[in-house]
Amino acid sequence: MKITAVDPFYLRMPNITTAADGTQDTLLVRIRTDTGIEGWGECDASPLVSLAVYCCPMSHGNIINIRTSLIGETLDSPDDVVRLSEKVLRNGLDIQQIQHAYSGAEIALWDVIGQQLEKPVYCLLAEISDTSDIAHPKLPYASVLFGDTSEDTYHIAAGLREQGYRAAKFGWGPMGKFGEANDIALVQAAREGMGPDAQIMIDAGVVWGTDYETAYQRAEAFAEFLPTWLEEPLAPDAIDAYDSLTEKNPSVPIAAGEGSSIYRMAEDLIVNGGIQFVQIDAGRIGGIMPSFKVRHLAERRGIQYVNHTFKSHLSLAAALHVFATNPDFDLLEYPAAGSELSQSLVVEPFPVESDGTVRVKELPGLGISINIEAIRPYLAPVRIEVGADTVFAQESL
Amino acid sequence: MKITAVDPFYLRMPNITTAADGTQDTLLVRIRTDTGIEGWGECDASPLVSLAVYCCPMSHGNIINIRTSLIGETLDSPDDVVRLSEKVLRNGLDIQQIQHAYSGAEIALWDVIGQQLEKPVYCLLAEISDTSDIAHPKLPYASVLFGDTSEDTYHIAAGLREQGYRAAKFGWGPMGKFGEANDIALVQAAREGMGPDAQIMIDAGVVWGTDYETAYQRAEAFAEFLPTWLEEPLAPDAIDAYDSLTEKNPSVPIAAGEGSSIYRMAEDLIVNGGIQFVQIDAGRIGGIMPSFKVRHLAERRGIQYVNHTFKSHLSLAAALHVFATNPDFDLLEYPAAGSELSQSLVVEPFPVESDGTVRVKELPGLGISINIEAIRPYLAPVRIEVGADTVFAQESL
Repeated sequence: MKITAVDPFYLRMPNITTAADGTQDTLLVRIRTDTGIEGWGECDASPLVSLAVYCCPMSHGNIINIRTSLIGETLDSPDDVVRLSEKVLRNGLDIQQIQHAYSGAEIALWDVIGQQLEKPVYCLLAEISDTSDIAHPKLPYASVLFGDTSEDTYHIAAGLREQGYRAAKFGWGPMGKFGEANDIALVQAAREGMGPDAQIMIDAGVVWGTDYETAYQRAEAFAEFLPTWLEEPLAPDAIDAYDSLTEKNPSVPIAAGEGSSIYRMAEDLIVNGGIQFVQIDAGRIGGIMPSFKVRHLAERRGIQYVNHTFKSHLSLAAALHVFATNPDFDLLEYPAAGSELSQSLVVEPFPVESDGTVRVKELPGLGISINIEAIRPYLAPVRIEVGADTVFAQESL
Repeated sequence: MKITAVDPFYLRMPNITTAADGTQDTLLVRIRTDTGIEGWGECDASPLVSLAVYCCPMSHGNIINIRTSLIGETLDSPDDVVRLSEKVLRNGLDIQQIQHAYSGAEIALWDVIGQQLEKPVYCLLAEISDTSDIAHPKLPYASVLFGDTSEDTYHIAAGLREQGYRAAKFGWGPMGKFGEANDIALVQAAREGMGPDAQIMIDAGVVWGTDYETAYQRAEAFAEFLPTWLEEPLAPDAIDAYDSLTEKNPSVPIAAGEGSSIYRMAEDLIVNGGIQFVQIDAGRIGGIMPSFKVRHLAERRGIQYVNHTFKSHLSLAAALHVFATNPDFDLLEYPAAGSELSQSLVVEPFPVESDGTVRVKELPGLGISINIEAIRPYLAPVRIEVGADTVFAQESL
């Protein structure tokens, strides 16, 4: 089949705040083909900046936009997805935003080819990599922000426990901003609210920059509350600081990687930074295939791959296909408190099943449907003019 | 003083081709202050994508545009430039394009503060780093594309020699695309055209991807023509392949780094890739300060820092200030065949002096003036609407 249309859609809530809540807006990408099959993907990125990568005028042979690279191309197999990804990235060699932007299209291409071949994406990945095609359930951890105080955090945690969550990650907000005692009180409150049997994870939201000594002290101080990991204590590119931190063997394992916008950044964190959990957002690193490559690196290095997902269940579907077939990679970031936009985006969100787990859908492609009627009110139509040319005019949703 | 305006301008030639010629368009950034001082910078990036980073609506606390971060801020010292850069990058943590886009503004901030303090930028850098403030001349190498054939390449090289160039870099075009014999013939033609006493450099334009064996074979085959370096034989993020290549000690030194859009990419190439020349574009890596940081890393590691500049002499000025004070870093990429736009962009381009060298200007700031009248015809006014909001409307030039 031929690719006939590649359309980005900028959706957003009416009021956007500075809170570290990635579900306030989104960029969806819809790919249509001449067979009538339609696939969708979602980017975790600035919607406008990424949208510009779909329509920017050519600057030279290394700055060619994504639409130009894809429209009219043949798509009949997973190999075609790989080939088209190489073309897009080569044509966009000098566009820094290329991976953030292309992620949505890459995910949509997998959705299309899965539907065409009537197989779930994880099965296609298993075929091309000659690995197991048996999917395993994941333990979802609710991904929430710390409350402003330890008391608020306790109530958030207790509420999650009541909802049945056996794991939860608390992040950002006050963590790291008001001294050690406050940081410890926040973690203690999360543990007490979730109870002694739950898994808790702590996300420091890059707050200590390159200060690995403070990160180490916090890891040691948090250890008595038994968090599964301490996430992003340092800046995403502070590889030497990560190395110094992990060399000290902190009592709490270190997690990082959500900021990986190219495969090498994840590889660098793993190989040179010594992290023990690598967290990859398929909506940032260029889609499903580079995420799958990081998963395999994690398998070879004996560390755990985890998804980073702070968007809708469309992103969650993409994330799940990447590592569904590895039973040891058993944790799933599960957005539990997203915006109305993100919660209404897919027709049937992934349920937490009676055994407390989440499973990839045994349906062709990503296995999800977009709730067009529900999200239409959130569309922010974009129009871009450059000189006398309209380089982008919004397609209807 | 206070920053009152931050304005990006998209300029382009009437016809843009796929040739690897970065001077066909550009993004300039003008910063104005309440004292009437005006500074300029240039990005080597997709103009539209980078412009979007100046005006994109906020998504959350990690996606805030550059204008919002800078306008109204105080700028009285180099420390303020550093502080503002930290703010911009922190606010843009989840915008992949942030460094490409911010480069122009960062360079403009240095231009402003240099004018305010009546010192050249390189002197300000010497002050804050407590290093020498004596500028040294550089040997410019003409940076040109290979001809389509070895015969064309010979004539290009001979023409450069007639113009007085003692060094020239030939790149891209047919290199690596038609087999070893053709590659060798191209290098031989460059050497013969430039003569036995000139320096020649070979830029393979990432043509061998991750295939370090072929890169090694070409380095060995080119060695008899004594090129100063073989540049970018591999993909910018193929660190393992660079490591494998440099471990084999090729007879021609390996150069790379122009694709570094964050400091870590350059550090990674140097520390883990083993390159011997690191080539940094201040218009991509986030401006003058991160380039200066790479220069210092190169000094510590005993390798050579070189600018990458394939834009106008505004970019050349920024590049020169970064490493003017190190006499050992004696080579300067000097755009010799740019578009009319790039050639007319500054009032007084950097001349090649009678001794064959180029010197940084002993004037406040960057030391250059923009030829507004000359470039106005190339302005491509941009207008961006998101929903009911006009998020960007072109300021006049």
